[in-house]
Amino acid sequence: MNERVTLATELNVFAEFKPRLPEKYRGSKYVFLANIAPDLQRDVLQQVKKRPKIAALDTMNYWIERSNAELRETLKHVDILMINDSETRELSSEHNLLRAAKHIFKMGPATLVVKRGEYGAMMVDKRGVFCVPAFPLEEPHDPTGAGDSFAGGFMGYLAGRGDKSDASLRRAMVYGSVLGSFAVEKFGLDRLRHLKRGEIHARARHFAKLTQFKL
Amino acid sequence: MNERVTLATELNVFAEFKPRLPEKYRGSKYVFLANIAPDLQRDVLQQVKKRPKIAALDTMNYWIERSNAELRETLKHVDILMINDSETRELSSEHNLLRAAKHIFKMGPATLVVKRGEYGAMMVDKRGVFCVPAFPLEEPHDPTGAGDSFAGGFMGYLAGRGDKSDASLRRAMVYGSVLGSFAVEKFGLDRLRHLKRGEIHARARHFAKLTQFKL
Repeated sequence: MNERVTLATELNVFAEFKPRLPEKYRGSKYVFLANIAPDLQRDVLQQVKKRPKIAALDTMNYWIERSNAELRETLKHVDILMINDSETRELSSEHNLLRAAKHIFKMGPATLVVKRGEYGAMMVDKRGVFCVPAFPLEEPHDPTGAGDSFAGGFMGYLAGRGDKSDASLRRAMVYGSVLGSFAVEKFGLDRLRHLKRGEIHARARHFAKLTQFKL
Repeated sequence: MNERVTLATELNVFAEFKPRLPEKYRGSKYVFLANIAPDLQRDVLQQVKKRPKIAALDTMNYWIERSNAELRETLKHVDILMINDSETRELSSEHNLLRAAKHIFKMGPATLVVKRGEYGAMMVDKRGVFCVPAFPLEEPHDPTGAGDSFAGGFMGYLAGRGDKSDASLRRAMVYGSVLGSFAVEKFGLDRLRHLKRGEIHARARHFAKLTQFKL
């Protein structure tokens, strides 16, 4: 389940899509630009009135290969790039993820979040590296949407918190992983639809047990 | 660097090897049976006078495939199995690592340590799961010996500590990862040869920075 192979991409309705942000979203302080054509991502960001506190962006191989110049332009305007490991390597032309991060910092984002599927996620910024494992599940059912659920948990945590300190970003990584782990437990949105806030916090505490040690 | 492909295995001197433990090693309380024929591993363990406090074992695809019955017999006598993820899957006939661990517990070991190369290591026992990432390096040079260095750090920490509490096993995982990360920094033994105790403890503290968060 850890590797995605793109057989074909049919843009369908996205080919002519020109998203218009509803008025009440134009004051958003936390903006996540989900995976779509980089020009559209930039267009959405420009519809937000004030520069957001945090703008994060996801992309994929399709845009890295076909819209590289547009993607580079859009990357100048975002704080966090949130992609998987193979995309990180493709965008930076660098296999080693630490060296890849340095290339990506020059493109604009100050923070790189690398999603690694069953191996968890890694955040790199100038302060250093933070790693969080994937939650060990005996029966993962459907990896579709795990990355977007991760992004939702990550951005949702930061928006609720209102700051971008290292401690908050680390917790955002944990809440991203929590939401990603719930997303794969059932097919499609079935698990997220019935998810309770208490379950989310309980799993975040479980992540602490999974990783913490005292020297 | 994360995947090993076995082209051929020539046992050479190991084919006729009959290890004899020197008298002063026969009282060892912490025994690590490195990767070799399972019958020889069991023979070495039997030369230790008293059942060790902790006996751990490494093995590989070659023995899982050709000496499966002998390996199963040896596994009955060890506490910790320390192998990589593909070996875990092959030995248990189970892709999911949590389910694989349950199969392996029935074979004898109460603890499974899964080495995952650039993705770190995972420990599973009845108390739960503990994950430690690999130390992010910009220039890993030579993965040869990383697994044995991990085992050395792990067992060395436990032997120095003298207990096998969950807290100690977690720290052993960290010290194993520390030693593995140094091993790959230079070719062969070059880095380990000049390694200082202070560097080891400093990197263990760095692992804490790499993984810890407060909810």
